[in-house]
Amino acid sequence: MSDSPVPPLSSRLIAEFLGTFWLVFGGCGSAVLAAVFLTDDGTQLGIGFVGVALAFGLTVVTGAYAVGHISGGHFNPAVTLGVFLGGRIEAKAVLPYMATQVVAGVVAAAVLFLIASGSDSFAIDPGAAGSFATNGYGELSPGGYSLLSALLIEIVLTAVFLWVILGVTHGRAPVGFAPLAIGLALTLIHLISIPVTNTSVNPARSLAVAVFNPAALGQVWLFLLAPLIGAAIAGSTYRMLFDRE
Amino acid sequence: MSDSPVPPLSSRLIAEFLGTFWLVFGGCGSAVLAAVFLTDDGTQLGIGFVGVALAFGLTVVTGAYAVGHISGGHFNPAVTLGVFLGGRIEAKAVLPYMATQVVAGVVAAAVLFLIASGSDSFAIDPGAAGSFATNGYGELSPGGYSLLSALLIEIVLTAVFLWVILGVTHGRAPVGFAPLAIGLALTLIHLISIPVTNTSVNPARSLAVAVFNPAALGQVWLFLLAPLIGAAIAGSTYRMLFDRE
Amino acid sequence: MSDSPVPPLSSRLIAEFLGTFWLVFGGCGSAVLAAVFLTDDGTQLGIGFVGVALAFGLTVVTGAYAVGHISGGHFNPAVTLGVFLGGRIEAKAVLPYMATQVVAGVVAAAVLFLIASGSDSFAIDPGAAGSFATNGYGELSPGGYSLLSALLIEIVLTAVFLWVILGVTHGRAPVGFAPLAIGLALTLIHLISIPVTNTSVNPARSLAVAVFNPAALGQVWLFLLAPLIGAAIAGSTYRMLFDRE
Amino acid sequence: MSDSPVPPLSSRLIAEFLGTFWLVFGGCGSAVLAAVFLTDDGTQLGIGFVGVALAFGLTVVTGAYAVGHISGGHFNPAVTLGVFLGGRIEAKAVLPYMATQVVAGVVAAAVLFLIASGSDSFAIDPGAAGSFATNGYGELSPGGYSLLSALLIEIVLTAVFLWVILGVTHGRAPVGFAPLAIGLALTLIHLISIPVTNTSVNPARSLAVAVFNPAALGQVWLFLLAPLIGAAIAGSTYRMLFDRE
Repeated sequence: MSDSPVPPLSSRLIAEFLGTFWLVFGGCGSAVLAAVFLTDDGTQLGIGFVGVALAFGLTVVTGAYAVGHISGGHFNPAVTLGVFLGGRIEAKAVLPYMATQVVAGVVAAAVLFLIASGSDSFAIDPGAAGSFATNGYGELSPGGYSLLSALLIEIVLTAVFLWVILGVTHGRAPVGFAPLAIGLALTLIHLISIPVTNTSVNPARSLAVAVFNPAALGQVWLFLLAPLIGAAIAGSTYRMLFDRE
Repeated sequence: MSDSPVPPLSSRLIAEFLGTFWLVFGGCGSAVLAAVFLTDDGTQLGIGFVGVALAFGLTVVTGAYAVGHISGGHFNPAVTLGVFLGGRIEAKAVLPYMATQVVAGVVAAAVLFLIASGSDSFAIDPGAAGSFATNGYGELSPGGYSLLSALLIEIVLTAVFLWVILGVTHGRAPVGFAPLAIGLALTLIHLISIPVTNTSVNPARSLAVAVFNPAALGQVWLFLLAPLIGAAIAGSTYRMLFDRE
Repeated sequence: MSDSPVPPLSSRLIAEFLGTFWLVFGGCGSAVLAAVFLTDDGTQLGIGFVGVALAFGLTVVTGAYAVGHISGGHFNPAVTLGVFLGGRIEAKAVLPYMATQVVAGVVAAAVLFLIASGSDSFAIDPGAAGSFATNGYGELSPGGYSLLSALLIEIVLTAVFLWVILGVTHGRAPVGFAPLAIGLALTLIHLISIPVTNTSVNPARSLAVAVFNPAALGQVWLFLLAPLIGAAIAGSTYRMLFDRE
Repeated sequence: MSDSPVPPLSSRLIAEFLGTFWLVFGGCGSAVLAAVFLTDDGTQLGIGFVGVALAFGLTVVTGAYAVGHISGGHFNPAVTLGVFLGGRIEAKAVLPYMATQVVAGVVAAAVLFLIASGSDSFAIDPGAAGSFATNGYGELSPGGYSLLSALLIEIVLTAVFLWVILGVTHGRAPVGFAPLAIGLALTLIHLISIPVTNTSVNPARSLAVAVFNPAALGQVWLFLLAPLIGAAIAGSTYRMLFDRE
């Protein structure tokens, strides 16, 4: 998102670490800590799916404005893949980016687990959909959606996410708005799909919390695969479809 | 929204296809999949009308930042008509734009139908207002509003929508903010009018979901007609009212 | 919000008419039509106070991006007063601006009344706080707040509103963000004060809906007076406090 | 956030006074006045945690666009400490900034107390978590989180807040978006952590309302200490981590 010389890879990886930590800690943290909050007389004050959707998006809005000028602000292995296939990042940075994102996500989930454990009412229930903000399909889909629905929506949403990312960071798009548009796209994606899969579009986010929940770990393959497929479709077609003049 | 040379029509139509797909899939998808979500003890975690309003707006915010520099980011036949009457797009592009928008909307609704069908609790109920995110009046208005109320509010909201669009894309308006302002205008429009008509202001969006619901198809004429009337009023008067210096 | 030559007064008044119409129709309309919407099983899908607060703010965000470069985007007699006292608008425009805003507000309320009347469940209840989006104190305060609380909060909120307006349109503030910041300030003001007075900070908005509700008309003096006092305080002190270098 | 010459310290302190007043009055005010609002039939129209989170964030978005070009827009002693350690403000301004913020917060809380007292239903309950928007842990944590969880989350959130602030105000970040990104970061922080501590990350905000609630005053040390620790970590490491090219 900048014409300046690219910073050294070590700086970029630190930026990706911080941004992905923020995405997982903030997004999954809002879901685990704040989605449901009932007063003594049963009034729901918690943030619900709207609040969780907003939280995920704002982690990217704020993270990308903060460090996007250093690393590009991916915070997501699927984004790194799509941006690479779209020709916007060099090949040798791809695996270091992805590895950093996965590690940062797991660290964030561990800190979240530690904080959440400080309340007596906290527990991870492997049989419950979305426990500890994990993703799932079938019996582990919040709304009971099938594997096919889960696969399809994760592919479609990640593909559009990447077309949006590659579009808003294009040289002809308005300058400076990319972090806002990308973050709000992630909010939108959550507004649509939390009931279906608890929303992934990000393998690092899915893996990070699944580590703490064996049932989710058994389904995490879909949330590694589908976002990468969607991102690959969009990344490999963007220039042909939208950038051919 | 750009001073650069206009891209080829084929590129613009692909951009309109993606943007309208996103508007219908994301906006109607949020309504169908996520508006209502009750926990086992009856707590509503779903996104409600605020979330649906936000989702519709964010499809335009993100879509217009992504491809607005290619096609102008209409995603709506009424917008294309108003922008044409306001002198901002050439005549020969109008019908291709509109046709592309309608096709993209139907494709989006079909993908949404496929995904939604993956949950046992999903069904389209032709007798229920707003089923599958369809628009309606009278018995098919969410709040039981009359045909006259529906006609009037769709005309008024689409007219103001177009005045806003033509204003924020005017050469003297702040640069770069048009996609944000236009998308947030669509959010606002939904915040006002979901109970009245389930909110159209967009013939492509109304037709797309009505195809899947025979009852809604019988009322879809109003949601083709009223937005086009409102857009025609605004588009044909904008320069006289606001741009006469 | 522009360094360009000032447009003719007639253009500016048309812009103020549209913007104030939008503020009253959209803000009060969201409250009247969409704040409460219960499904058959009692789930609240309506937009609540958060949605109404967002709607009021977005009328200004969108209206000010659309026509702010023509008229300055006041849409509120208190804003016009404060901006005049802050030295940003010429004296002879003040009364025409205010008169236009009041007329536009009443027209908007009339159109809203006509649309709302198309539902059997609509009625104005003069004994109920906030009926038809009117402002009130004491028995007509949504949360039963006293006249003193109402007076104080309207003065404080309008004063800060004007300091914000004069600050964000100052030559040293970031370019282009004023409509966003001003509109979001109005959202914030509603998030704080709907339970106290149903939130005015705008005499035109208060008068417009009070015309349709005799009980509210008896209290409307406070909502003409307090915002003008708050705006006068801020407008007359801004340069001394913040602009003295 | 500006390359212009620094205004005199007295102007900057007035700006910090207004901004911190706005943060405490608007943020805590939304929580005290508007978080819960039940209709006669028990429908919740209040703004809940999402609305409070939005309100806190918007005080900073609007305050920082309004006076950020004068004072930098800290409104928070932890921010002032972190920005100082990050090398962005001179040492002699630090204590005057902090003292001004604390005084402004207390004044705001006093005005809020006066307004809230105008409703018969208002009362401060020292035994209840979060009464008068106070922060707490253990029995005074809204969700019953332990002292350790409170300490940890306040440190983590303030640290990331400061990395974000130092990042978005860096010379290579997009121009003009800093107030938006910083304010939305504060919204995000509240979306995550209201159930844990009622969210501080700001000693002035915590102290201001604790003055009115003896129980909260006994725990306020944590909300002075933890945000300052978090800010110190981020401020002293920012340049080493992210700004080393």
